[in-house]
Amino acid sequence: MFSYSTKVRVRYSETDRMGYAYNGNYISYYEVARTEALRSIGLTYSRLEDEGILLPILENWSKYLAPAYYDDLIEIRVFVKKIPGVKFEFEYEFYNDQKELIHVGKTILVFVDKETRKPTKPPKYLIDKLKEFFD
Amino acid sequence: MFSYSTKVRVRYSETDRMGYAYNGNYISYYEVARTEALRSIGLTYSRLEDEGILLPILENWSKYLAPAYYDDLIEIRVFVKKIPGVKFEFEYEFYNDQKELIHVGKTILVFVDKETRKPTKPPKYLIDKLKEFFD
Amino acid sequence: MFSYSTKVRVRYSETDRMGYAYNGNYISYYEVARTEALRSIGLTYSRLEDEGILLPILENWSKYLAPAYYDDLIEIRVFVKKIPGVKFEFEYEFYNDQKELIHVGKTILVFVDKETRKPTKPPKYLIDKLKEFFD
Amino acid sequence: MFSYSTKVRVRYSETDRMGYAYNGNYISYYEVARTEALRSIGLTYSRLEDEGILLPILENWSKYLAPAYYDDLIEIRVFVKKIPGVKFEFEYEFYNDQKELIHVGKTILVFVDKETRKPTKPPKYLIDKLKEFFD
Repeated sequence: MFSYSTKVRVRYSETDRMGYAYNGNYISYYEVARTEALRSIGLTYSRLEDEGILLPILENWSKYLAPAYYDDLIEIRVFVKKIPGVKFEFEYEFYNDQKELIHVGKTILVFVDKETRKPTKPPKYLIDKLKEFFD
Repeated sequence: MFSYSTKVRVRYSETDRMGYAYNGNYISYYEVARTEALRSIGLTYSRLEDEGILLPILENWSKYLAPAYYDDLIEIRVFVKKIPGVKFEFEYEFYNDQKELIHVGKTILVFVDKETRKPTKPPKYLIDKLKEFFD
Repeated sequence: MFSYSTKVRVRYSETDRMGYAYNGNYISYYEVARTEALRSIGLTYSRLEDEGILLPILENWSKYLAPAYYDDLIEIRVFVKKIPGVKFEFEYEFYNDQKELIHVGKTILVFVDKETRKPTKPPKYLIDKLKEFFD
Repeated sequence: MFSYSTKVRVRYSETDRMGYAYNGNYISYYEVARTEALRSIGLTYSRLEDEGILLPILENWSKYLAPAYYDDLIEIRVFVKKIPGVKFEFEYEFYNDQKELIHVGKTILVFVDKETRKPTKPPKYLIDKLKEFFD
């Protein structure tokens, strides 16, 4: 399993009139967590796109256990539990400053050829790098 | 069952560099669909909040079958298939201009007392109004 | 002068914890106003981009006279006071339900060639169409 | 003069179909820059709001000299050039990885009493802290 921990601070722009981080923003927090997790092992979305591979989201699932508030520094733990095939799955756990689990989520992305917009296999270097965390 | 159809046009601000409506924005499209569905039968979030009831999201699930693009006028069909208790469930289907189903989703919200921030029952007038669509 | 009036309803996702429509969202409201103003006379951004012309923003100015609140239906009046050259200027006035002027703004966009990313002249049909409103 | 430098990385969610960071997001980048600048000297928005003072934006001005792209790590230099009275002014300069100035901006905020929603003076401790950077 590959896992990584990153932090995001809730921006004022991301709050809503309940004073909570608006739900839609969690999708972009997921993205930050995935991006930083991959960057930590030398992989970037930018490189993938430069190589002609897009990675759109197929499915998202989110469960909000407790709110995140303005200026909270949220720890996001992200997990890759399976070597990706055409699909690439990420799971998330969000913790607030009091180390409470406030959110869990899951995303399934698909490797897509930029030209044909059809599903495609991930590049070998990406699989090889991830395999180092599995055995 | 209560159902309603509304339309949202994809804004430039909502696109991403793939040229797709960014996934996180679907959560706010859901919100527009719910809001307009409830408004169509005389119910508003604003009134609920004025009455001391919040309606935060507990759970969201989204499946992206095909992209929505800039300036697309998306039809959102929203469904309430159960009379709400403490939880209020909505399902969505998104159709593009070619009447293709491009997205399905589901949200579970919870009625919460604004003061105690504890789950609470929905107001009677809301239940009564929704009951008109079930039998 | 060319002017047009359109309406946007403030989404929950667009509010912040003051209960106001967050300032950054006004930029996307401007975009909606421009888009609908141009559409009303048969001009679309999409067509421009298909023709190889981008229209990025060079400059924005915004003055917030009074807040817009959740679920407010804001009337946006948009004005083109000059035939565009390389630059295309729009001015905005926002009115709330009580017909109060709550916001004024101005945007300067630039016609840019998609390939060279250099400033370019607007297409003739766009100028011709706008000229009908000036004399 | 008080100045501070912070960094924000452009999220995928913040790009648009030109591949640029969407203009409206700069307003939330400004907010991040102000927040971190004030935090660096022990001042927080949260504390202000807890003390009954809101700090809404009165005026924003933005000039986009060159685009910011996905995953760019933008340096934002923020400047307070005047001791605030009822108004609090911030200026910004954005630099990309190549140290090019790509954006300048300015925001005028107003201290507002949370109850009366009328302009009010900033708290003494805030003025005292800022005064350390002027003379």
